[in-house]
Amino acid sequence: MTMQQFDVLTIGNAIVDVIAKVNEAFVVRENLVKGSMNLIDEARAEQLYSHMGPATEISGGSAGNTAAGVASFGGLAAYIGKVKDDQLGGIYAHDMKSIGVHFGTAKASDGAATARSFILVTPDGERTMNTYLGACVNLTTADVADDVVQAAKVTYMEGYLYDKPEAKAAFRHAAKVARAAGNLTSITLSDSFCVERHRDDFLDLIRSSIDIVFANESEIKSLYKTDNFDGAAAAIMRDCRLAVLTRSHKGSLVVRGDERVIVPAHPVEKVIDVTGAGDLFAAGFLFGHTRGLPLRQSASLGSLAAAEIISHTGARPEVNLLKLAHDNGLI
Amino acid sequence: MTMQQFDVLTIGNAIVDVIAKVNEAFVVRENLVKGSMNLIDEARAEQLYSHMGPATEISGGSAGNTAAGVASFGGLAAYIGKVKDDQLGGIYAHDMKSIGVHFGTAKASDGAATARSFILVTPDGERTMNTYLGACVNLTTADVADDVVQAAKVTYMEGYLYDKPEAKAAFRHAAKVARAAGNLTSITLSDSFCVERHRDDFLDLIRSSIDIVFANESEIKSLYKTDNFDGAAAAIMRDCRLAVLTRSHKGSLVVRGDERVIVPAHPVEKVIDVTGAGDLFAAGFLFGHTRGLPLRQSASLGSLAAAEIISHTGARPEVNLLKLAHDNGLI
Repeated sequence: MTMQQFDVLTIGNAIVDVIAKVNEAFVVRENLVKGSMNLIDEARAEQLYSHMGPATEISGGSAGNTAAGVASFGGLAAYIGKVKDDQLGGIYAHDMKSIGVHFGTAKASDGAATARSFILVTPDGERTMNTYLGACVNLTTADVADDVVQAAKVTYMEGYLYDKPEAKAAFRHAAKVARAAGNLTSITLSDSFCVERHRDDFLDLIRSSIDIVFANESEIKSLYKTDNFDGAAAAIMRDCRLAVLTRSHKGSLVVRGDERVIVPAHPVEKVIDVTGAGDLFAAGFLFGHTRGLPLRQSASLGSLAAAEIISHTGARPEVNLLKLAHDNGLI
Repeated sequence: MTMQQFDVLTIGNAIVDVIAKVNEAFVVRENLVKGSMNLIDEARAEQLYSHMGPATEISGGSAGNTAAGVASFGGLAAYIGKVKDDQLGGIYAHDMKSIGVHFGTAKASDGAATARSFILVTPDGERTMNTYLGACVNLTTADVADDVVQAAKVTYMEGYLYDKPEAKAAFRHAAKVARAAGNLTSITLSDSFCVERHRDDFLDLIRSSIDIVFANESEIKSLYKTDNFDGAAAAIMRDCRLAVLTRSHKGSLVVRGDERVIVPAHPVEKVIDVTGAGDLFAAGFLFGHTRGLPLRQSASLGSLAAAEIISHTGARPEVNLLKLAHDNGLI
């Protein structure tokens, strides 16, 4: 049996988002930093949940959102991530498979439950994430299906997952298999605290094994310990082939060798929930890039997908992104 | 310990809604009647789920939605319904308690899983529901907490639940306890197929034990086997003290003895998902009625709450209904 070919394989923390609206006072009362991503243990998860208002559950996870975005553009996507064999794990798998994303990672039969992220959305659309990783953290090299990596034009990995030694080993293994097959490797830095904790490991991984780096402004500054965005953009060019740097409403900068492509943010009527903006930018860019489109067009697809996702609650597209791209004259 | 007083106690099927957008072709392909509510078994639930697209999970259940609506108006609400001690059951209980609804029904420790309703929303906003009742059907008289019934100004029961002999017995018990305490009893007919199946039992229950009946046009016509709405409205007056009849965009009719109050539907910019319209109408009406407001004002609160719920996906209010009522000059 020949493995199907994929445009994009993403690897990350398989997380169900538990989204609730909160006011600013709630964020203060719970001692949270607005806009941050916090890792929490089971006891804190239960405590926070008991303080939160009613919520909506929807599949999420940074790299999972990216895979969903690629599929919505009509790209062939695969996903590797760890859930438990419980109700939320079943929901996660359903949501992936139902949009045509290949998802074959074995579910854990015991141990911690499927991961949840309590996403608290303030009236300004900002999201403060509190993630209980649960079953996620048990992703190891054994879960990296070599045949899927070999069949994917690009393997994209989520920095959030790059925390435990086993996951780091899984990343290095995936990158090695991808490169040996002549495929591209990619990583998103995910979070500036993530970068703080693992700066040297990230730099080492990027220099040795990564072709395309995704980062937002604070992440790339953190990686090079600088306050100068242009300096950071110059630095990343010495360390990888292609970098995609997103700057929220200021748009994005794509750098490749001496090339510099600046693309504005796609206009949004009202920002409802910024969750998934970076994930969907990556989806649009990777879809375009793996289809051989120019950098500017690929980044514009990223901007469009990011704009769609922040105009509603939840980090999975609510419309067909390929049709949206057609309607906007981008494809 | 004295039990807290409640404005409204609702009793019904505790169901997690699994909401997905579908096109008209999907409804046809799955042999569904658009706009209907179908009871499905576990095998069909799994089959349908595997055919459906990605979904959002949110607590639902007709009477549960009504309790949530009463709480959103600032009313004191309680709920009785059966979930299992699983992840979805935990979500259901959280969502109730987090909005201040008293929910003390013991969770089932074994047997069928927490109920799910696959709600397929077509582009016109219509919803076709496919409900796997799971743990729901095991609600019995033992789950009807007498002290909660005695503490509630009105006990409102959902016709959907009025199917198995044990649930029918639970309804009769709740009505008896409520009346003995000098409180009001209420029922919603829920669904015309529901009425078809149990017409004589419904009529018998209403005549012997119910003060306030809620029904939409097709349900009240079905109850009296007539095509004449006015005739059905006259008939229900002979069988109960107060009837609240909803007619979708045509508004509602409240009848009490010789009184007839006609209230228009509250205008809606765009209908997104009609799920929960009747449930929230009941919430607004019961909140007003138990606070001693006139029939017209109570029905207007119902119209307002129904309009809020159909203007977004999901059957739980997304805004504070008390504030919305203030902003609309209704309170």
